Amino acid sequence: MSQLTVNLGKNSYDIVISEGSLSSLGRRCAAIGLKGMAAVVTNPTVAALYGDVVRDSLLSSGFTVVQIEIPDGEEYKNASTLNRVYDDLLEAGVDRASFIVALGGGVVGDLAGYAAATWLRGISFVQVPTTLLAQVDSSVGGKTGIDHPGGKNLIGAFYQPRLVLIDVAALTTLDHRQFRAGLAEVIKYGAVIDLQLFEYVEANIHAILEMQSGVLIEIIRRSCELKAHVVELDEKESGLRAVLNYGHTLGHALEALSGFCGMIHGEAVAIGMVLAARVSKVLGFCSQDDVDRIAGLIGQCGLSVEVPNFDRHDLLEVIAADKKSRGGTITFICNRGIGMHAMSQQTPEELLGLSGLEV
Amino acid sequence: MSQLTVNLGKNSYDIVISEGSLSSLGRRCAAIGLKGMAAVVTNPTVAALYGDVVRDSLLSSGFTVVQIEIPDGEEYKNASTLNRVYDDLLEAGVDRASFIVALGGGVVGDLAGYAAATWLRGISFVQVPTTLLAQVDSSVGGKTGIDHPGGKNLIGAFYQPRLVLIDVAALTTLDHRQFRAGLAEVIKYGAVIDLQLFEYVEANIHAILEMQSGVLIEIIRRSCELKAHVVELDEKESGLRAVLNYGHTLGHALEALSGFCGMIHGEAVAIGMVLAARVSKVLGFCSQDDVDRIAGLIGQCGLSVEVPNFDRHDLLEVIAADKKSRGGTITFICNRGIGMHAMSQQTPEELLGLSGLEV
Repeated sequence: MSQLTVNLGKNSYDIVISEGSLSSLGRRCAAIGLKGMAAVVTNPTVAALYGDVVRDSLLSSGFTVVQIEIPDGEEYKNASTLNRVYDDLLEAGVDRASFIVALGGGVVGDLAGYAAATWLRGISFVQVPTTLLAQVDSSVGGKTGIDHPGGKNLIGAFYQPRLVLIDVAALTTLDHRQFRAGLAEVIKYGAVIDLQLFEYVEANIHAILEMQSGVLIEIIRRSCELKAHVVELDEKESGLRAVLNYGHTLGHALEALSGFCGMIHGEAVAIGMVLAARVSKVLGFCSQDDVDRIAGLIGQCGLSVEVPNFDRHDLLEVIAADKKSRGGTITFICNRGIGMHAMSQQTPEELLGLSGLEV
Repeated sequence: MSQLTVNLGKNSYDIVISEGSLSSLGRRCAAIGLKGMAAVVTNPTVAALYGDVVRDSLLSSGFTVVQIEIPDGEEYKNASTLNRVYDDLLEAGVDRASFIVALGGGVVGDLAGYAAATWLRGISFVQVPTTLLAQVDSSVGGKTGIDHPGGKNLIGAFYQPRLVLIDVAALTTLDHRQFRAGLAEVIKYGAVIDLQLFEYVEANIHAILEMQSGVLIEIIRRSCELKAHVVELDEKESGLRAVLNYGHTLGHALEALSGFCGMIHGEAVAIGMVLAARVSKVLGFCSQDDVDRIAGLIGQCGLSVEVPNFDRHDLLEVIAADKKSRGGTITFICNRGIGMHAMSQQTPEELLGLSGLEV
């Protein structure tokens, strides 16, 4: 078992990572002082697999439990689903002494976390991420929110969980495509923050793809540690935290154009990272060897590195609407060699040109 | 001119109170470092009166300005109106470098503040309250949010403005009913925190009702100062801030039962205060003279002190659903004499009994 603390003053919380930790949820919630009713927000797929163990664990520690299911898929991370969750919270009598458990992937975590941030102006919540992507990315850092028809995550809040509980055993039931997509985020941390993690993934790629729990715990632990460190230094994303957007500016645009359902997040980020590496090389921040090594590791994970053939004007428009654009330019994150980063101010037009995607 | 600072560390902000301050809005926004686009959220009534002076002031300080109108009335403080505001923010290109100006009463302030709290996970906002209620209450303290069909303010966030600009000249165009309702909140501060303010209102009630600007600035300044002090000590309403709920537990319930439109907030709070004073007397926290004095001053403001004849079971249900109920009991705020408070844990049933509203 690995355990980390994210140090954010009075908003500090622990991340627990182990094999089989789901059954300890109730005990751990009680240990941090949570009381009353646990509203478990999940989706039907995850509920069928892990709903019972989570419920039993919470009940046996004296909590009352209500389960709220939302449909599975990014296309449901919207205001309409959120409003149904609010209705369910009201009906269940979820008050300020109660808490929300987000049991599932990034959609569940983001939406349930945002519901916790905004119900009664904020109640406690616990993240129990069951996908690799959520385990290494979305469950750490306090970003919660929903999508708007105009773009991903346009509506949201920074709101920290009280506890993050990661069970690597849950990955064994995860769709392989989702698992590979999650690896893209692990490679991201390696590419712009930690050469050692990048090399660990390179050296252990077969054990990782075979889902050996020891290597999984190690890459998840290190990814969470890196993300936690960045978040500690910059909770509200005013500066350094932007480094985590590596591969995401173009990745989000590709994902948006694929209608939030054709391409999944990690797949889009994987291509976004290859494009970001190309931009980094053109701007002189890394060599062609570095670009090839990043693209190579992404390919070894079974992720595509080919840019889909979207209309360039559509791409431009989506990038310009991205919330990270400030006054017309974008703070674009480059890799500096492998394991370090550089920031560059670019207009959306310049960015497409540098990526080799001229309009 | 009066100026106060609400001290909340890096979330600190100033409250400026004067006659004719609207025209200084642009200059003051520039002085605190705001830039780019100002999205002025307002309603048609306020826009017709003050839209131009606000726009001109912002333009002349170099801001670009977009105006977003929402319908007038508490019944529009909901998810549907909020979603239309998000659409307008997207269409106007409001990014993280932009800010929102809430120009209007409590509905505009609460909804626009919540939009600012949640758009792109939070952008800057400035409160320009134009009703007495908003000036002395809702614009100070960072409570933002919307109503849910199940209750008032069930969805929201604590989010601080960057500046609050209060122009008492705006009160001259305010409906008398709204003005009197705002006085209920001023009396509230007096009744549970500040005997001196209570006596000032008693002594100057005629000048207040004639809207003499000197006395208005004084009661608004003192009310904001008291609220700011409480908020500084308890930003997230974990303890002391509950004192501001005096008159609100029963007031909210009456308001909800009147359908959010029959009775306006301050009118409901006025009756809630009379009931709270009765409870305080029964529990031994104040004398009958104190009850009469509180009810008397409320009456002098032209506010009704009669409880409408709602079904007691409906009242019970609404009180039990109130977000301030924790584990079945309510922390009820009593006046201790006049100018001090006491807290008492009560079930909704006990509360109605103590108020003389037995089921």
